[in-house]
Amino acid sequence: MTDPVRVRIAVDAMGAEAAPRVEVEGALAALSSPEIDVVLVGDHERVRRVLDELGSGVPAERMQVRHAAEVVGMDEAPTSAFRQKKASSMRVCFELAQRGEVDAVVSAGNSGAMMAGALLVLGRIAGVERPAIVTTFPTQTGQCALLDMGANVDVRPTVLAQFSVLGAGYARLLHRKARPRVGLLSNGAEEHKGTALTREAHQLLTRAGTSGRPAGFAYLGYVEGRDIFRGQVDVVVTDGFTGNVVLKSCEGLVEWLSHAIREEVEQGSVLEKLGALLMRPALRRFRRRSDHAETGGAPLVGVDGVVLICHGSSDARAIKNGVLAAGELVRAQLRQETARAVAEHAYLWREDAPADGAGGAA
Amino acid sequence: MTDPVRVRIAVDAMGAEAAPRVEVEGALAALSSPEIDVVLVGDHERVRRVLDELGSGVPAERMQVRHAAEVVGMDEAPTSAFRQKKASSMRVCFELAQRGEVDAVVSAGNSGAMMAGALLVLGRIAGVERPAIVTTFPTQTGQCALLDMGANVDVRPTVLAQFSVLGAGYARLLHRKARPRVGLLSNGAEEHKGTALTREAHQLLTRAGTSGRPAGFAYLGYVEGRDIFRGQVDVVVTDGFTGNVVLKSCEGLVEWLSHAIREEVEQGSVLEKLGALLMRPALRRFRRRSDHAETGGAPLVGVDGVVLICHGSSDARAIKNGVLAAGELVRAQLRQETARAVAEHAYLWREDAPADGAGGAA
Repeated sequence: MTDPVRVRIAVDAMGAEAAPRVEVEGALAALSSPEIDVVLVGDHERVRRVLDELGSGVPAERMQVRHAAEVVGMDEAPTSAFRQKKASSMRVCFELAQRGEVDAVVSAGNSGAMMAGALLVLGRIAGVERPAIVTTFPTQTGQCALLDMGANVDVRPTVLAQFSVLGAGYARLLHRKARPRVGLLSNGAEEHKGTALTREAHQLLTRAGTSGRPAGFAYLGYVEGRDIFRGQVDVVVTDGFTGNVVLKSCEGLVEWLSHAIREEVEQGSVLEKLGALLMRPALRRFRRRSDHAETGGAPLVGVDGVVLICHGSSDARAIKNGVLAAGELVRAQLRQETARAVAEHAYLWREDAPADGAGGAA
Repeated sequence: MTDPVRVRIAVDAMGAEAAPRVEVEGALAALSSPEIDVVLVGDHERVRRVLDELGSGVPAERMQVRHAAEVVGMDEAPTSAFRQKKASSMRVCFELAQRGEVDAVVSAGNSGAMMAGALLVLGRIAGVERPAIVTTFPTQTGQCALLDMGANVDVRPTVLAQFSVLGAGYARLLHRKARPRVGLLSNGAEEHKGTALTREAHQLLTRAGTSGRPAGFAYLGYVEGRDIFRGQVDVVVTDGFTGNVVLKSCEGLVEWLSHAIREEVEQGSVLEKLGALLMRPALRRFRRRSDHAETGGAPLVGVDGVVLICHGSSDARAIKNGVLAAGELVRAQLRQETARAVAEHAYLWREDAPADGAGGAA
């Protein structure tokens, strides 16, 4: 284990589309946080070249480079690529974490391979069937954590119950919500809505906090797509198929909106064009609020370690924010807090816990 | 059957939140189309009162009022409410259609009850397991039809294959795409992505057009959430759970965006405020492009009739556009064309059709 007041983070230098430049630049920028040290993992020569160009004067103990001869490609089949490429930058990162030489792993590489690697090398927290990827959405009053964003496509009801605990833990530590409000994503708020999967998960989750048992979150029941943005719920739980489709639909909509507004302004009057020009600073501030580079990637929760997955198209700012977010999760003890929360809430999905609390502790 | 060159449409006058005013006003506005006649169905006295106020001088043959003593409420359990309320305005509409006294039904009421009513009174087109609700999204180059938007939550692969045929028929008739490009919504474009459901549906759909068999659409394979808006696909097929979540997430995002931009402008400089003022006409044109009142509701495809479901919050313009869209679908012979297309593509989901086309017609 590293020095308890310092945090050391392995950054996969070969993950992003613009690797290794954005990783080196982002990692250097993250060193502005005085408690963070970085280990850059990747092709030694290519990383060194960028580092020599950008990083003169960085003390060696704060920024190491570890060679890795292979790279897991974006289009490779995740599990087999991770297994076969023993010398991949991604795998070396996880092995550093597994040996306790770093406290967290950050990569903008193949997210399926990240999931596979975390499972194979770090393993799951006891009691967790499947880890999940969390994404943060902006809301009218702050932030909402949505999980799973694509790691698990076909899940069981017990997995959704576990996601509630994982998501609530994350919102508590990173979004500073003392008792997060958790909702289950559905096609309507009424109990008869949803799929067979969500109805069973709902049954499990309604047991949260009953019979005096601990619940680190408030379960709201079903929520709808629009509730993600309204600020009335802190954590929205769904399977990885639905979560991924929601995330990408929202990205597509934002893309279309900017396109359509630009088109209207271009076809508009001189005054409209002037108006657009004057409004630019407001639009820039707005974009910053909704930009995912600002939030610094998506954590993988439920694995026995701190793992952050950045977007393949990350720039240096996104990598920097990813490293800083990973540092925050290490300091907040995400791993230990998650293990504690999962153990405490096991009554939600364990067969041997009484369904109605009749035999409970109360 | 009514006069073949004229179209008569039953409008449920009691469906919308602001019923019956918006229905009466919208129906009157739709009479500007000279081939359309309307039958308003609802509480005779309440409808008459609004009609007397707004509709002086409308010839009786173009606008009839049919009394219905009951209303299906928005929060009622769809099927039982529809079954029990024999005198509901919604049920009377469907019975008029079933007897051939009208060519189409338009309602802004309980959409689950609309689905139940269409199934019970009109029935399905032969070969269709489940009807679907279609919603039109704006794209960078035109429009994209997404189905199902919430009518069917747990579906089988064969149902998704049928949705492709239903959606393609709709896009051909209403969006004037000669050979619509159809995609299956998934969490990634690669074949190994998706759920057990989408993978099986994908297998069925790859048979489209093979061995010289007819295919009224081009099957593109998996598409992602962002593709809905990019203009490269005309019809996106998914189950009603995912479709509903996508639609409502997009609504929530647009709500948040307007809120956030307003906030940024309010907190901004005088110049930014002036800019926002000057840009208003462009924003208004933009809103019109993305406004669902403009598209006039969502058709229910796969039932043996023309049925259009409007949003509960519809205003008179939305009802008017719903009536006009229903008229267009009647004139384009949606019902007959759908029946033909379903029969022609039955090889996609029928067990007795050869999987690889080896015994096919080619």
